[in-house]
Amino acid sequence: MKLATIPNGSRDGALAVVSRDLTRMTSAEAIAPTMQAALERWSDVEAPLRALAERLEQGEGQPFDPATALAPFPRAWQWLDGSAFQSHGDLMSTVFGMEKLPYDQRPLMYQGVSDRFLAPTEDVALPSEADGIDIEGEVGVVVDEVPLGTSAAGAEAHIKLILLINDWSLRTIAPVEMKTGFGWVQAKPPCSVAPVAVTPDELGVHWRDGRVCLNLDVHWNGERFGAANGGAMAFSFAQLVAHAARTRDLVAGTIIGSGTVSNADYRSVGSSCIAERRGIELLDNGVAETPFMRFGDRVRMEASLPGASETLFGAIDQRVVEARPAQ
Amino acid sequence: MKLATIPNGSRDGALAVVSRDLTRMTSAEAIAPTMQAALERWSDVEAPLRALAERLEQGEGQPFDPATALAPFPRAWQWLDGSAFQSHGDLMSTVFGMEKLPYDQRPLMYQGVSDRFLAPTEDVALPSEADGIDIEGEVGVVVDEVPLGTSAAGAEAHIKLILLINDWSLRTIAPVEMKTGFGWVQAKPPCSVAPVAVTPDELGVHWRDGRVCLNLDVHWNGERFGAANGGAMAFSFAQLVAHAARTRDLVAGTIIGSGTVSNADYRSVGSSCIAERRGIELLDNGVAETPFMRFGDRVRMEASLPGASETLFGAIDQRVVEARPAQ
Repeated sequence: MKLATIPNGSRDGALAVVSRDLTRMTSAEAIAPTMQAALERWSDVEAPLRALAERLEQGEGQPFDPATALAPFPRAWQWLDGSAFQSHGDLMSTVFGMEKLPYDQRPLMYQGVSDRFLAPTEDVALPSEADGIDIEGEVGVVVDEVPLGTSAAGAEAHIKLILLINDWSLRTIAPVEMKTGFGWVQAKPPCSVAPVAVTPDELGVHWRDGRVCLNLDVHWNGERFGAANGGAMAFSFAQLVAHAARTRDLVAGTIIGSGTVSNADYRSVGSSCIAERRGIELLDNGVAETPFMRFGDRVRMEASLPGASETLFGAIDQRVVEARPAQ
Repeated sequence: MKLATIPNGSRDGALAVVSRDLTRMTSAEAIAPTMQAALERWSDVEAPLRALAERLEQGEGQPFDPATALAPFPRAWQWLDGSAFQSHGDLMSTVFGMEKLPYDQRPLMYQGVSDRFLAPTEDVALPSEADGIDIEGEVGVVVDEVPLGTSAAGAEAHIKLILLINDWSLRTIAPVEMKTGFGWVQAKPPCSVAPVAVTPDELGVHWRDGRVCLNLDVHWNGERFGAANGGAMAFSFAQLVAHAARTRDLVAGTIIGSGTVSNADYRSVGSSCIAERRGIELLDNGVAETPFMRFGDRVRMEASLPGASETLFGAIDQRVVEARPAQ
């Protein structure tokens, strides 16, 4: 089943079910007014939502244009982002001369801004090119309510939806904040999210071991930048959920991210963020040649099932622009 | 003006105006249904709320029991906690053998869990005494919408309410998470908040230079633990707000915390967290003797205007209990 949030003038938009090929939709507001409301009552709403999805596949519904959708969650109560790809973490630690991150011990995770997720085609307004504007292509999961102390074995059943996320990052600020140990605030402005949230069964065998085993296709100004596979996570999403729930209940609609998708053969498959490519250049050539993003640059992110003619989540396709100064 | 949130069966409770002496209240739902709704329309609702407050001072209203209130914001879209007291930061850095935090350069801040704030008398359910259960007595401010790029000079006008907060902390986990640079997730379960939110004018001259210049009285199992003054912040709340808004718009209802209130003469005034007292013991005697909290322990936090017979925010007064394991 595929779900989207349609603009209706409210902060949270309106819930819609979308056809598998992303061409048709039907309002689901009679079942749950918003994506958040659906997650809060998932066990009650899942069957009627799936019934709507079934009728869509039989040809019902109205036209859907993924480019007009909001983020599936225009805002959420909690966004916890992991960093589960060891090839990325190890490279960054090496480049910055930092101690290796503890991938053999426990997941890495920070809490990020969640009062706003940008729509997939919305301009991304940032204050300064000097901040080192970068993308981070990720996948993420959405859970229903997860009680404190839930184990990894128990966590997978709470994973209800999968998302494709661009976690915008400001690389000049990131190491300054990281060095304090407090994590990132200024370095992590709001993320963008692809238009369609999908249930794990939509991935078939490519949802495996609690991982999204699909390539994340990233294009920067029309040129292919990376196609790393999400299956390489050092920890599964179930482990990330259990980590997050160690000392708190997770509110329904909590979004948990994978961190930048990265593979050990990043030299051939490419990267999901510019910082990683710069790190490779620095290691290989002694100098990071690829610049960070400029105002006006575009980024496109999408993922497809092998052999499919359409994208799974729809595409993030947006432009970075200069934020207007505060009055 | 003093505001509180009254239980009504909903997640966000109902907005009420409270008399200065905390004995009477009147529903403000006709003006704004919730505290969050009030912050979203503050310029429209402030005058009518103040008119209600005026009538309360003239004897109108119904009885108010602060012990029955919810947290002023039972949940919020964003909780950003600073660490603005240098005496605390310097001591912790010394004790943990870490590099001194950059108090002369930029504020420290992390984003914490905000989908739930515990009511002031609610039991605090935590999974294990072995996690090193600790309090952090803080003050915080609530802003209306703050545009990206707002300066410190422009930020103070956005500060609408002041809160008293206990930022529960798990000290066994905190340094492990801090060392990764990602900040805290497991080490920071939901905070508790005193029953009444107050407008800055309620502090008179004790709201000065963007700081809450009042003693934070902390009692642990009935014994005085600390009475440090909030005026010693290295950065003002206006500076903290501007720091937070450097690369993001701050949503109305964002709560920004001071970090553990601490004074350079902590040996005489006491502390607002156990970790600080343990740090002093370690420095002075070579061994940290004061244990962290046990299940069943109580903590009380409050603050009063000098000479006042009643507390300003009402009291946080609650007990730590063992969380029931997940099913």
